[in-house]
Amino acid sequence: MTKLEDVYTKYWDLMPPLARSSYIRGDVVYILDETKLPHQLYYIESRDYRRSVWAIREMKTRAGGQTLTIVNTMVLELRKNSHLEGRKLLKYMAKVAQALGKARPTAPLLGIAMKVYEWIERACNEGGDIVKVVEEEASKFLETIFENKLAFARHAANIIDDGFTVLTHCNISGGMVLVARECKRQGKNVKYIVTETRPYLQGSRLTAWELSVEGFNVTLIPDHMVASIISRGVVDLVIVGCDRCARNGDIANKIGTFQIALACFEYNIPFYVWVTSLDYSIPTGKDIPIERRSENEMIYYNGQRLYCNGVKAYYPAFDITPAKYISGFITAKGVIPPRLAYKYEFLRGVEF
Amino acid sequence: MTKLEDVYTKYWDLMPPLARSSYIRGDVVYILDETKLPHQLYYIESRDYRRSVWAIREMKTRAGGQTLTIVNTMVLELRKNSHLEGRKLLKYMAKVAQALGKARPTAPLLGIAMKVYEWIERACNEGGDIVKVVEEEASKFLETIFENKLAFARHAANIIDDGFTVLTHCNISGGMVLVARECKRQGKNVKYIVTETRPYLQGSRLTAWELSVEGFNVTLIPDHMVASIISRGVVDLVIVGCDRCARNGDIANKIGTFQIALACFEYNIPFYVWVTSLDYSIPTGKDIPIERRSENEMIYYNGQRLYCNGVKAYYPAFDITPAKYISGFITAKGVIPPRLAYKYEFLRGVEF
Repeated sequence: MTKLEDVYTKYWDLMPPLARSSYIRGDVVYILDETKLPHQLYYIESRDYRRSVWAIREMKTRAGGQTLTIVNTMVLELRKNSHLEGRKLLKYMAKVAQALGKARPTAPLLGIAMKVYEWIERACNEGGDIVKVVEEEASKFLETIFENKLAFARHAANIIDDGFTVLTHCNISGGMVLVARECKRQGKNVKYIVTETRPYLQGSRLTAWELSVEGFNVTLIPDHMVASIISRGVVDLVIVGCDRCARNGDIANKIGTFQIALACFEYNIPFYVWVTSLDYSIPTGKDIPIERRSENEMIYYNGQRLYCNGVKAYYPAFDITPAKYISGFITAKGVIPPRLAYKYEFLRGVEF
Repeated sequence: MTKLEDVYTKYWDLMPPLARSSYIRGDVVYILDETKLPHQLYYIESRDYRRSVWAIREMKTRAGGQTLTIVNTMVLELRKNSHLEGRKLLKYMAKVAQALGKARPTAPLLGIAMKVYEWIERACNEGGDIVKVVEEEASKFLETIFENKLAFARHAANIIDDGFTVLTHCNISGGMVLVARECKRQGKNVKYIVTETRPYLQGSRLTAWELSVEGFNVTLIPDHMVASIISRGVVDLVIVGCDRCARNGDIANKIGTFQIALACFEYNIPFYVWVTSLDYSIPTGKDIPIERRSENEMIYYNGQRLYCNGVKAYYPAFDITPAKYISGFITAKGVIPPRLAYKYEFLRGVEF
């Protein structure tokens, strides 16, 4: 039997911390508290799904970390409740899946939670050792995620030339480190420019941190500098992540992504998106639900109020970049055109 | 004789605090410390030019406040040193003018300092009461600045319709409040969207503050949200300031301005720049010197380090918006086309 613990052990060194930001050990799910980075590498210990839902909602973990947390937490709850009679177990796990899946609206979290639930349902119907069956499925799923990450990085590195300066926004769950490692392995000298990504500063706290601790050349810029430096020819290529991708190739990613795409489009700079799956049920970017975060997340910094009373703040967490502005999707199988991505069957599967 | 004090008294209520952010009284120049806003309305007391240079360099005062500070400080030094023999006085005042004029590179500060110096030089040559002559000139200059601000606001308000949402970036030295007051006087209901403007947060601390204390409807957004909301049709019109304008109509303004112009251009939203003077000696935007600020200004917030060691930061204070992306210049005489602005003689004069 493959336990989830074994998968994490196998990929521990191959993956940078943000690519394996949640893992399970026995009756505890460990969730890297990304809000404490880069000052502290601190793991939240989750012993039940409510704690994991809290960690996702409060953005302690985000992007790919949400997928790992959901899978780990479903397995944790299954281990703890496997003594329950079949119907009771399913009812409880359905509740867990709903709670995890609805913690945040924009990423397809419910799809991931329901995927694990379906493994449980099938195992229940087929009889046998439910925990064992589900853990085998979960292990295969996570192995695919990690293998895909490595493949992504290879495909991304192939389109990066020696001497390039690559700009990225927010954080692709350890992805840029994998790309940087691969470029280095190929003997390419590459510089990285990272946006701050207000107000959570994922660019400065996460991406800049993970690239710099591995010794890569990284420069931080304010979010509103992208058009300026792109117009001056400083950037050779852009890679950003993607929280949701519509059937027509429009993507949702961290707010600020669209303006980078727009500047690249104007100045003929390649703008690539790291895409793991397409949401076939969503026709266009306009149909992607956009999460609006509390205005307090903008108004306060480390407990200090930044602004005066009487001022409202507006903070949608994501924006939509239409397919028109995207040069290509980097996927685990290679680079494909955004508008035709829906034709590729493999984008139906893994969500990360 | 018109003393500078009288000009400030006359315009005190007509101008919001950021439009008269430096004033003189006897042997003290008071400089509003804009970095302490909105928490504190605190004035730095400057008793000699070195303190004023420090206030400008540290961005305690900025934009139009720099012009007022330079004029006030030149008059202050003249009052203090008028007992000096002519050549000695001129030598000293030339040193003062150089120090003030070179405190920061992008705005035409040296031009302002030299303008006052030339009044002094002429008064010396012509004989008579030097202080009196120079104060008359300085008073006329400041009256023109204040009258122009009121005229600007009227012209800006004329192109804003009832129900509009107006976006602005950084802070136009009290200008947006004058526009908002004028719109209100014309019976127009207007909403304002203000960017944060990292890292000094002039948008959130200054513009949002001054609009909200006067009761206007103001919403703050992160800097990297502009393209997203412009693409969604939320913004009807943009007005930004301008720190320097080249002969061909390209402008330098706070970093982040260009990406707003780019998004407006793509989505056909009017993008206006508040222009007081053109620099005929600078052919294009590429020739405008761009000030690079210390990376510490990005790395630290209120003494807290935001980023990890090993990460470089890059923070040019301004970016260039080519004339092509600008719908029009708002001037004291009306709205004019950017590419033809050099034909208008009145843009040779006042620098603010």
